[in-house]
Amino acid sequence: MNLRTSKGRILSGMRPTGPLHIGHLFGALENWRRLQDEGYHCFYMIADWHALSTEYQNPESIKDNVFEIAVDFLSCGLDPKKSVIFIQSNVKEHSELNLIFSMIVPVPWLERNPVYKEQMSELKEKDLNTFGFLGYPVLQAADILIYRADYVPIGVDQLPHLELTREIARRFNFLYGEYFPEPKELLTETPKIPGTDGRKMSKSYGNAIYLKDSEEEISAKVSKMFTDQKRLYRKDPGHPDECAVFAYRQLVSDGIGDIKNKCLNAEIGCTDCKKQMGRDLIEFLRPVQERRKYFSEHREDVWEILHTGSEKAMGFAKQTMKDVQKLVGMEY
Amino acid sequence: MNLRTSKGRILSGMRPTGPLHIGHLFGALENWRRLQDEGYHCFYMIADWHALSTEYQNPESIKDNVFEIAVDFLSCGLDPKKSVIFIQSNVKEHSELNLIFSMIVPVPWLERNPVYKEQMSELKEKDLNTFGFLGYPVLQAADILIYRADYVPIGVDQLPHLELTREIARRFNFLYGEYFPEPKELLTETPKIPGTDGRKMSKSYGNAIYLKDSEEEISAKVSKMFTDQKRLYRKDPGHPDECAVFAYRQLVSDGIGDIKNKCLNAEIGCTDCKKQMGRDLIEFLRPVQERRKYFSEHREDVWEILHTGSEKAMGFAKQTMKDVQKLVGMEY
Repeated sequence: MNLRTSKGRILSGMRPTGPLHIGHLFGALENWRRLQDEGYHCFYMIADWHALSTEYQNPESIKDNVFEIAVDFLSCGLDPKKSVIFIQSNVKEHSELNLIFSMIVPVPWLERNPVYKEQMSELKEKDLNTFGFLGYPVLQAADILIYRADYVPIGVDQLPHLELTREIARRFNFLYGEYFPEPKELLTETPKIPGTDGRKMSKSYGNAIYLKDSEEEISAKVSKMFTDQKRLYRKDPGHPDECAVFAYRQLVSDGIGDIKNKCLNAEIGCTDCKKQMGRDLIEFLRPVQERRKYFSEHREDVWEILHTGSEKAMGFAKQTMKDVQKLVGMEY
Repeated sequence: MNLRTSKGRILSGMRPTGPLHIGHLFGALENWRRLQDEGYHCFYMIADWHALSTEYQNPESIKDNVFEIAVDFLSCGLDPKKSVIFIQSNVKEHSELNLIFSMIVPVPWLERNPVYKEQMSELKEKDLNTFGFLGYPVLQAADILIYRADYVPIGVDQLPHLELTREIARRFNFLYGEYFPEPKELLTETPKIPGTDGRKMSKSYGNAIYLKDSEEEISAKVSKMFTDQKRLYRKDPGHPDECAVFAYRQLVSDGIGDIKNKCLNAEIGCTDCKKQMGRDLIEFLRPVQERRKYFSEHREDVWEILHTGSEKAMGFAKQTMKDVQKLVGMEY
């Protein structure tokens, strides 16, 4: 990848805390793949240190989760020839930049971070009152800025974190000289796909369809989905915009305008519609699952990809740290 | 140095924030040198990241300070053939272990740290309300535990920090399996030497005699020292135990019993006593200053020593991090 002709550098990442579901696919990975194919210079990170911030009591699963999320990444079309796919903790320089940033970040910047407050109250069952969890946005700033990323594809809810990254970049530049870019958000409109019960798709709600689910599992989950709850009889007109099944069909079925009309005019029943959606979803996921199968059977290839990606990331990160050491006055 | 036959591993360090004075020599470096010569396996660290926690607004002086403190270390008899003398930020693994520890350290452990509270109120002129300053003891625990140190030579005032290091070791061992030793303090009785005005010797009080001071500077500083303030006339008996000059003589003059008796019996005047102390101090510091001169004129040797020491420290630290990665489940 020629840096000069790229449209800019991108950093994004996910925490390896469990298998990815189709919410991740439509909400993030499809977008990541598109950015990669549109000529951005993309760094996609498996954020295992960040996983530790909430999973520090369950170390036994981290390695498996790292492997599985890598398989998910690759199956969804992330291409190691185009993107740098790497493991965060393989690039020690993140921790070094994190430490340097920690010296210039006032504690109140972190305490008043709305995402922090929200998570502290949401994840009450976990003991999150740790120094590392408080410093989550500092490490995130290091993750992004060590690649001097121009853009970060995120959801609206993560804007406060990115704003903090920009504040840290500005403070560093103010103290030590103009060096880091202020990364911009790429707020790509991504479709929200509800869980099978209509709520937000989430592992903890038990309403997720996973990329690794078999056809049988997908069929079983789809068959239990709620459809249009306002439509009591087959002859009643439907309300597609309030129907979870329709939300799925928009993503996986062809001829969506026609489907919508048939629903509005009661020309198709909910059961048939749902069955067709299940078939379409399975069809849609087939190439993803074929790649999943391939990579699951070629474990060494996956580790090799991660190893090579980490080396590439490290090369970039080392150069940044060289510059940073010079600016901070610690170049010996 | 054969690890098996050593009396145990020791880690200690100083922040490179300015030239060292004779308070450092008598209070710490003499002790460090003795430990080194008694067969401990010593790691002596120039803690430049820690310096950044209070000096982040003055990056231009760090490199000079690192060099000067290295010269001070070497001049006071630290021997790179026996001890590992290194720069903290050259061993990136400290920042990595710091990051991992941060995930398991509750914020209240840090907030209720008495040293933190004290420094926050003492150093009001500096903006210390940073994330890194709050996390000072976490990085310190990483500094110590990455070498699996058995002992840490410290003053009583630093006991709370070391207790926190032990708490972190215990918590890590509890979560991931017994690995880190709980380092013990080496509370060697070291003489307290007052400043030239009788208060605690400190750069900020302007009452320090530096290792790099010339003979003229030492003479000038000594000549202005207070002597026995209760002794109004030459014929009055003196109070050696309340006299700063006598405190110095205990460290640098021969025949101290005789001197004390002469003072108590008014057989020696304060002015003569002070003059003699100045001569003895200069004599005492002569070998230190000769080595200082040598190393100041052989800058490349000093950097080479630091480089080699950092390589040795790194070798040890890398092995620890390998073990830690395995225990935490992040070995790929």
